[in-house]
Amino acid sequence: MQKKEQLYEGKAKKVFATDDPNLYIVDYKDDATAFNGQKKGQIAGKGVINNVMSNHMFQLLEQQGVPTHFVEQLSERETVVKKVSIVPLEVIIRNISAGSFAKRYGVEEGIVFKAPTIEFSYKNDDLGDPLINDYHALALGLATEDEINEIKAMAFKVNEVMKDYFDHLNVTLVDFKLEFGKTPDGKIILADEISPDTCRLWDKTTGEKLDKDRFRRDLGGVEEAYQEIMRRVMGK
Amino acid sequence: MQKKEQLYEGKAKKVFATDDPNLYIVDYKDDATAFNGQKKGQIAGKGVINNVMSNHMFQLLEQQGVPTHFVEQLSERETVVKKVSIVPLEVIIRNISAGSFAKRYGVEEGIVFKAPTIEFSYKNDDLGDPLINDYHALALGLATEDEINEIKAMAFKVNEVMKDYFDHLNVTLVDFKLEFGKTPDGKIILADEISPDTCRLWDKTTGEKLDKDRFRRDLGGVEEAYQEIMRRVMGK
Repeated sequence: MQKKEQLYEGKAKKVFATDDPNLYIVDYKDDATAFNGQKKGQIAGKGVINNVMSNHMFQLLEQQGVPTHFVEQLSERETVVKKVSIVPLEVIIRNISAGSFAKRYGVEEGIVFKAPTIEFSYKNDDLGDPLINDYHALALGLATEDEINEIKAMAFKVNEVMKDYFDHLNVTLVDFKLEFGKTPDGKIILADEISPDTCRLWDKTTGEKLDKDRFRRDLGGVEEAYQEIMRRVMGK
Repeated sequence: MQKKEQLYEGKAKKVFATDDPNLYIVDYKDDATAFNGQKKGQIAGKGVINNVMSNHMFQLLEQQGVPTHFVEQLSERETVVKKVSIVPLEVIIRNISAGSFAKRYGVEEGIVFKAPTIEFSYKNDDLGDPLINDYHALALGLATEDEINEIKAMAFKVNEVMKDYFDHLNVTLVDFKLEFGKTPDGKIILADEISPDTCRLWDKTTGEKLDKDRFRRDLGGVEEAYQEIMRRVMGK
């Protein structure tokens, strides 16, 4: 399978057409951004780690009954995925308070919730990806009620699978962001990526952050944290 | 009934204890604030209008089966209400896009929604009353699931009653904010006020704004707009 014209370049990935109208190729970059693009940098080797880890997670999730866009890994940084139109809602599941949640509601990080929370952000860089609820998403026509219910159910299922998976790697899954896509025949499937860019992952023993917060907060050891997660995920 | 010690002074009202431990007296002020207190002013006669109009609306809602804190009007600006602890969620119902919704999601004002939307803000001035969803409110212990469901059902009922009521006064009910309180025996009832401070009200024929947006946006004719709504509500 060959890359054709570039369809899109995002903050962390490029997307290319292929000979097959139902398939795309994604190409993961080392570019890192934070705070809606205000902070920019590079994390050496991130593209490789995020590609390989995402594909690993997608295959795990498929085995657990969650449909994803994953088709086939082509190279260290390139993967064939199903063509979808992305639902313009970022889906965030939280098990523990951190990041924007802690800041927005004036609470400390590290509060373990009795039940996971889910929230949607309207995926729109110009507006700063504002928080949005089901009623608003419906009123703005961003998704149908059925699609929203399906996305919620799938997101909670992903959380159950991933929480358990990371627990076995001595990692606490604090929170994460998912994106869903709609296939040409209207099916909702998990898309985008699952990586230290999109998850908060804390070492269960030491509490050490093994995710993009090391970059966001200038904590140092960014590459090492990505490599450590990769090492645990790949069992090496 | 006599005012005892002042318990609380808000932006638009003072609350006093009474001889009866289950009753408070609210005293409506002419002070007006907007944008989380950044803009301040006075609207002459507003306290009287908001008191009389709120009591009128609460009585109408009681007749329609919505329990409220209203007990008895004492004077132009003073009303006896049931003692409640306020649930720290501002409840906003929207029938038409306007204000913070239009700004947050980058849409024009005046879009008529197919179905009304509901949203909660966490009532916390220091945090700027941030938008919050059901899951977050539960995680932070701001209300129970039953309370949230009850509040939603009551808010939609209030919308049905008020939309119809204002329609007969040739006024479009665009959106409004409600607050709910919990009585000492744990019952959720409608509290706070219902006035041009807390509703967007547009003349059905001309589209003229008859609410606090005249103050927020320096449109002039602020007092006249409040008086016009009062005139229509009181049928004079």
